[in-house]
Amino acid sequence: MLDEHGTLKLAVIPGDGIGTEVVAEGLKVLDAAGVKAETTTYDLGAKRYHATGETLPDSVLEELRGYDAILLGAVGDPSVPPGVLERDLLLRLRFELDHYVNLRPVKLFPGVTTPIAGAGPEDIDMVVVREGTEGPYAGAGGVLRRGTPHEIATQESFNTAYGVARVVRYAFAKAQARPRKKLTLVHKTNVLTYAGDLWMRTVESIAPEFPDVTVDYCHVDAASMFFVTQPSRFDVIVTDNLFGDILTDIGAAIAGGIGLAASGNVNPERTAPSMFEPVHGSAPDIAGQGKADPTATVLSVAMMLDHLGLTEAAARVERAVAADLAERAGAGTRSTSQIGDDIAKRVAG
Amino acid sequence: MLDEHGTLKLAVIPGDGIGTEVVAEGLKVLDAAGVKAETTTYDLGAKRYHATGETLPDSVLEELRGYDAILLGAVGDPSVPPGVLERDLLLRLRFELDHYVNLRPVKLFPGVTTPIAGAGPEDIDMVVVREGTEGPYAGAGGVLRRGTPHEIATQESFNTAYGVARVVRYAFAKAQARPRKKLTLVHKTNVLTYAGDLWMRTVESIAPEFPDVTVDYCHVDAASMFFVTQPSRFDVIVTDNLFGDILTDIGAAIAGGIGLAASGNVNPERTAPSMFEPVHGSAPDIAGQGKADPTATVLSVAMMLDHLGLTEAAARVERAVAADLAERAGAGTRSTSQIGDDIAKRVAG
Ligand SMILES: CC(C)[C@H](C(=O)O)[C@@H](O)C(=O)O
Ligand SMILES: CC(C)[C@H](C(=O)O)[C@@H](O)C(=O)O
Repeated sequence: MLDEHGTLKLAVIPGDGIGTEVVAEGLKVLDAAGVKAETTTYDLGAKRYHATGETLPDSVLEELRGYDAILLGAVGDPSVPPGVLERDLLLRLRFELDHYVNLRPVKLFPGVTTPIAGAGPEDIDMVVVREGTEGPYAGAGGVLRRGTPHEIATQESFNTAYGVARVVRYAFAKAQARPRKKLTLVHKTNVLTYAGDLWMRTVESIAPEFPDVTVDYCHVDAASMFFVTQPSRFDVIVTDNLFGDILTDIGAAIAGGIGLAASGNVNPERTAPSMFEPVHGSAPDIAGQGKADPTATVLSVAMMLDHLGLTEAAARVERAVAADLAERAGAGTRSTSQIGDDIAKRVAG
Repeated sequence: MLDEHGTLKLAVIPGDGIGTEVVAEGLKVLDAAGVKAETTTYDLGAKRYHATGETLPDSVLEELRGYDAILLGAVGDPSVPPGVLERDLLLRLRFELDHYVNLRPVKLFPGVTTPIAGAGPEDIDMVVVREGTEGPYAGAGGVLRRGTPHEIATQESFNTAYGVARVVRYAFAKAQARPRKKLTLVHKTNVLTYAGDLWMRTVESIAPEFPDVTVDYCHVDAASMFFVTQPSRFDVIVTDNLFGDILTDIGAAIAGGIGLAASGNVNPERTAPSMFEPVHGSAPDIAGQGKADPTATVLSVAMMLDHLGLTEAAARVERAVAADLAERAGAGTRSTSQIGDDIAKRVAG
């Protein structure tokens, strides 16, 4: 952990599309918060891929291990075959740096419009703890007789007691630290019986360590529905990589849109740097036009500060964002950098 | 196919909880539509399981093959170990009777309240074509060192060219028959690369057979978000078993709730009877109280009539439901059987 006198060694991966634009605003706000940071920018993403064919060279991965944290914008570009940057850069970082907690708050800030009729900030305030290093994202599977009428393609989900227990225990602790102290396991135990059974038994076996946490279970289909019809059911959710991916996009939708959704890829034991990134993608259609909302990145910076132990600075950034959002309705259309400026001013002021 | 003079041989599986209540109303409406039906009721579900240990005896399965169609209420009860009836009865029926199309309309009827602010019937009108006989629902997987810290549990998705092509072709034809003629493949091709690649190539290779259909692709996370923020993006969706399960529950949420969501498990070649059922479960908490909404079952009956070629009767039932829904706001609280009566009256009248 850093103390307030330390200098934050930060690796920055702006990536593609709007990634560069939103990361600039994140850094602006970090600076305004008075955090001393030494940043190094890495050109990973589509450009590097086209120039050298590299996605994430081993040497760069090793260098990245030396930082306190990583701030990532977004990766992905239509000019790169689909999935290459996602898998060989983004997912590889998450897996290699053992980001087993993918932390994604779903929180409706006052003043933000939700598409859910009648819902307010008191109804939408949860944290999704998404597993980040195994499950259906393991990349396992295969194909036989490709391109023939007899092709078969498989896709395998790997779930280990080790991997499930550590993320479940983290989620319990998260729930315990929140006022409602409620944890919901989301899975599909009635169909995915092997994996579901491991998740269910793991939650049951860890529950006694957290006697004050209420435990609940919900099938992923029902949970997806309740995100829309009854989001107040949820406080902390723990789930696998794929279900967490889906739920947090629904979460972004109900909490005011993908422009506000922050995330942390966290290595709780700090054996490697954690990585913070907006949930949104590189949005090539609006790239370079100053139209992207940097708020998700700024909130990701707040999560990073919190993770690093700079809780006061984290709280200041989050308060500044909240204040900015509260007055957004009257603020008119602002560019990416104007929003960054406005939040930075509030942080500094 | 039946003609209007034929007698429909219908197998009825009311199942558990509210299943019995809603199925009774479905049959009432079928009768009101003047469809000659010879129904046989099967007591499959929790009661039979407790009495005999049976979920779906082979002899019953063979008998069921002799019907024109099956109407199912809902299965599942807290007294039965989770997943047993779902897998060994419901999913077994879908797999054995080769219901490779799980057809799930997501349609907001005029007068029905959606939780999506500002959305109307013109925005929410799609059909999800969910694959029903393979994918992550194949039941494949395993567990090693169960209950130890070294446990590993796997879950496998099986996707075959045969299985994917037939459902994709069905979805294309469905899209072609609708005014917008738009088909969206939903998958997670950037992560589930083996399965995703097969689905994507299959859609691409079948597209030329349907030159007037616009084809689109959307990752499952983004699609889940768009169901909430921009449902009008979608016309016909084709997707795998698991993604279809999740999407159609979000679909039920945005189209007025699970009480209205109908489905058909369709065997398009009619090598076995198709099975029609509401998307909702057995809801043990409200069972036996006359509180369940039978509308989803009645709409499933309409889908059944349509499948059987009794399109005129199907249209009459759907019109009656639409009329009932349009006046629901003023109708006060009605019991399950009152709603059934009211719809039946409209169908007959
Ligand atoms: C880009 C993709 C691989 C990624 C994921 O599926 O995790 C994204 O959707 C996310 O949610 O961060
Ligand atoms: C009960 C369960 C096995 C089933 C499914 O997952 O298909 C249900 O959720 C559905 O959508 O019909």
